[in-house]
Amino acid sequence: VLEATLAELVEADFADVRIEQIAARAGVAPSTVYRRWGDLQGIINDLSSELTVSIDLQDTGDLELDLRVVARAVVALRQIPAHRAWLDAMVAEAVRSPQARQTLATAIERRREITAEIVHRAVARGEVPADTDAHEVIRLTVAPLYLRMYITNEPLDGKVADRAAAVAADAARHGLLRLSGAE
Amino acid sequence: VLEATLAELVEADFADVRIEQIAARAGVAPSTVYRRWGDLQGIINDLSSELTVSIDLQDTGDLELDLRVVARAVVALRQIPAHRAWLDAMVAEAVRSPQARQTLATAIERRREITAEIVHRAVARGEVPADTDAHEVIRLTVAPLYLRMYITNEPLDGKVADRAAAVAADAARHGLLRLSGAE
Repeated sequence: VLEATLAELVEADFADVRIEQIAARAGVAPSTVYRRWGDLQGIINDLSSELTVSIDLQDTGDLELDLRVVARAVVALRQIPAHRAWLDAMVAEAVRSPQARQTLATAIERRREITAEIVHRAVARGEVPADTDAHEVIRLTVAPLYLRMYITNEPLDGKVADRAAAVAADAARHGLLRLSGAE
Repeated sequence: VLEATLAELVEADFADVRIEQIAARAGVAPSTVYRRWGDLQGIINDLSSELTVSIDLQDTGDLELDLRVVARAVVALRQIPAHRAWLDAMVAEAVRSPQARQTLATAIERRREITAEIVHRAVARGEVPADTDAHEVIRLTVAPLYLRMYITNEPLDGKVADRAAAVAADAARHGLLRLSGAE
């Protein structure tokens, strides 16, 4: 059912995807889908968990190199039609639906909690201040990528990803991303 | 007609806005609207120009303080229902329509060309390297704000804006935002 939902999302807008089509594609009865997931948002929630656990973190011993892996993963995920369709649908739907907004925010935060480990290790190594805001480091690493994807519609590549990682690592090292704020 | 379009966008989704409703609200004949703008996208294009010229740049003599004005303007615009409605509609529509994508990209780039002046002044003062990528400095200043608006759905405030400005100014000063790339 999750695969069928992704396939539907690749082909149609979120608003046009129907449980009946998903059930037919998955070869199950619509009532089975309704019973287990309730509605499309329920399926998307499950899908979000599936799609967000797949980041292969590395421990290079250097914050910037570790963050490159995170930034490049965002770029790489963009090349996977199913993931791109899911994210496009979520972003468009989040503008109008508080529920979609919540699903998207939760998916992104779950992923950020995993990647924040990179910053905790940099703190342990003494590479960045102890009160560095790990989530803010990750936000800054991915922000230029999402800006290009959804606002400025500019191309994404490894160079853009690496630059974002370099900027975030530098800002963290200089104490600009502390929990207490920028001051 | 532009005001009527904004008012409609505040009340309805982009996909549900009709030229007939806009014309009725503006007190003109639909044919007048079709003749002058062609379609909704044509009106939105004009609207985009109107909405993007209103940034009041300052020359504080300091890159970080100048960028704060830019970042805070993005946050302030978010508080204006008409502007928020326009941007929300554009972002949602850009996911599915190449034409909307182009309109949004052009509007954002036009604004960035105006604000890039801030960076040119910093270059002239010798505050940042001569080959600093002015557009990249502006992108980095606004990226964390758009991330919170459309991806992570986290609150925006002056502190978030000021931190974004501090990070972008710092990265520019350290030569991380040169035209030649991050290396």
